[in-house]
Amino acid sequence: MSTPMFENVALIGIGLIGSSLARVIAAKGLAGHVTIATRSAETLAQAQALELGDDYCQSNAEAVRDADLVIVSVPVGASEAVAIEIGPHLKPGAIVTDVGSTKASVVRQMAPHIPAHAHFIAGHPVAGTEQSGPAAGFAELFQDRWCILTPMEGTDADAIDRLSQFWQACGSTVDRMDPDHHDLVLAIASHLPHIIAYNIVGTADDLEAVTKSEVIKYSASGFRDFTRLAASDPVMWRDVCLHNKDAILEMLARFSEDLSSLQRSIRWGDGDKLLELFTRTRGIRRSIIEAGQDTDEPDFGRHTHKTEPSAAPE
Amino acid sequence: MSTPMFENVALIGIGLIGSSLARVIAAKGLAGHVTIATRSAETLAQAQALELGDDYCQSNAEAVRDADLVIVSVPVGASEAVAIEIGPHLKPGAIVTDVGSTKASVVRQMAPHIPAHAHFIAGHPVAGTEQSGPAAGFAELFQDRWCILTPMEGTDADAIDRLSQFWQACGSTVDRMDPDHHDLVLAIASHLPHIIAYNIVGTADDLEAVTKSEVIKYSASGFRDFTRLAASDPVMWRDVCLHNKDAILEMLARFSEDLSSLQRSIRWGDGDKLLELFTRTRGIRRSIIEAGQDTDEPDFGRHTHKTEPSAAPE
Repeated sequence: MSTPMFENVALIGIGLIGSSLARVIAAKGLAGHVTIATRSAETLAQAQALELGDDYCQSNAEAVRDADLVIVSVPVGASEAVAIEIGPHLKPGAIVTDVGSTKASVVRQMAPHIPAHAHFIAGHPVAGTEQSGPAAGFAELFQDRWCILTPMEGTDADAIDRLSQFWQACGSTVDRMDPDHHDLVLAIASHLPHIIAYNIVGTADDLEAVTKSEVIKYSASGFRDFTRLAASDPVMWRDVCLHNKDAILEMLARFSEDLSSLQRSIRWGDGDKLLELFTRTRGIRRSIIEAGQDTDEPDFGRHTHKTEPSAAPE
Repeated sequence: MSTPMFENVALIGIGLIGSSLARVIAAKGLAGHVTIATRSAETLAQAQALELGDDYCQSNAEAVRDADLVIVSVPVGASEAVAIEIGPHLKPGAIVTDVGSTKASVVRQMAPHIPAHAHFIAGHPVAGTEQSGPAAGFAELFQDRWCILTPMEGTDADAIDRLSQFWQACGSTVDRMDPDHHDLVLAIASHLPHIIAYNIVGTADDLEAVTKSEVIKYSASGFRDFTRLAASDPVMWRDVCLHNKDAILEMLARFSEDLSSLQRSIRWGDGDKLLELFTRTRGIRRSIIEAGQDTDEPDFGRHTHKTEPSAAPE
């Protein structure tokens, strides 16, 4: 085996992202030694049973003591508490990063508590599934995905390079961005879709009982596509909403304005306007498929599973 | 080969649904002879090149002359025109059905023009993909899906049975419903999700150019799930909006009310309310998977395609 990129890596938080990192680090030999820390004794025991690291501890402070690279994978609302805990225990030259879905808030929460002798570089691997917890992770999660770094001005260039190389070794392409711009782009690419999905599933859940059971029965006609996002980790998404409020409210306002206009077209039977919108939106899907960000199989390829017993609605 | 269910079948319209019917009829030997009719010479030539039937003609009237079963698969707004054309040419005992996504409007449009010596039974196979046209169809489209029939009172019970058996032979489970109730259930299970998806993709399409290209780049973080529905056939969906207006406006009003309330929780930082909604919605996804109406693979199983060249965002 070649020399690992980092001698000691500390993973703070071991959910979907943390445990996927543990797996890709092991699979590609990116670290000499991996310490896993999480507050919950139960989650830590699960991580240990899955053999995700070399050492396990409930103290974040203890976990980072020897670390060359610290990756914080917790709901963004917990970022400041973690930074306060680990700050005094970081060794000189240590790189500290995170994986949160909002960046300006994380920078505000963490940067003040990281000592000058360490390098803080906020990051966001744009990857995930609707599942959560240590068992949900897999080594290929970051393969062919993007990882966005939002370093502050004056950050050590060598540290940024080393962190970029780490994400590339995980299979990702690294992009760099200003934290505020990141938050605006992700508000429309990720946060608004999740909020809309949670909302429509909530609307259906509130329907009279008989109708609700029928929505489930006939969900293959559209509704089910929204339920995947609406099954994502609730705590993570509560924190995203609270920590990217301004950009989300801006995108929600645009969305609602457009929806009112669409609703008006339906009410007044303006078929031309409906046809114009419904035609225009096909172009965006083509662009996404051309950019390699989705499969072009009909129905996301679900029909390839049609012979499995779970797909039979007897 | 056993005796086919119907001697002569006429398929009016040969898009995704019509061409899937042609394929399953051929695969399972459900008809002695299949006539395909569509207005567009180009589409008809495509159907012929794909060898989807035995006879091909541009006249709907001519196509139904000998038919025992006529299946009309056109955008719902074209239903009345087709009924007027075929009505006078139907032979005694012929069963006429359709596959439209709205039912009350189709019944209003078609029933008056079908002669008493034929049997009109409106229907809706709850199946489809985002693709359209004769080449997009496949024989398994209806497998393990539901087909809803909405016969009028007094319809010949034997005709309903024969049509039900036909759909069962196509792989579907048949349900029966009042047309108005169908339209309400599908408004939330199918129509609202499509409208919301079209709307959010439209909102993204209107963004400043640089942000729009970034939405495409980072769409795997949520946005892309909406684009599949928003790539569906524009004419079909314009007609659905125009022909199920009342139920759609009712569901849109509920959705918007809920969204305003959610937006307020975000603005005022009401984390408990957000967490409550985001937790509750997981239950609906579980129900859909238990009902066999979606795959429980993370990310719809997209990661199984990760090694294909099209998935690499170089």
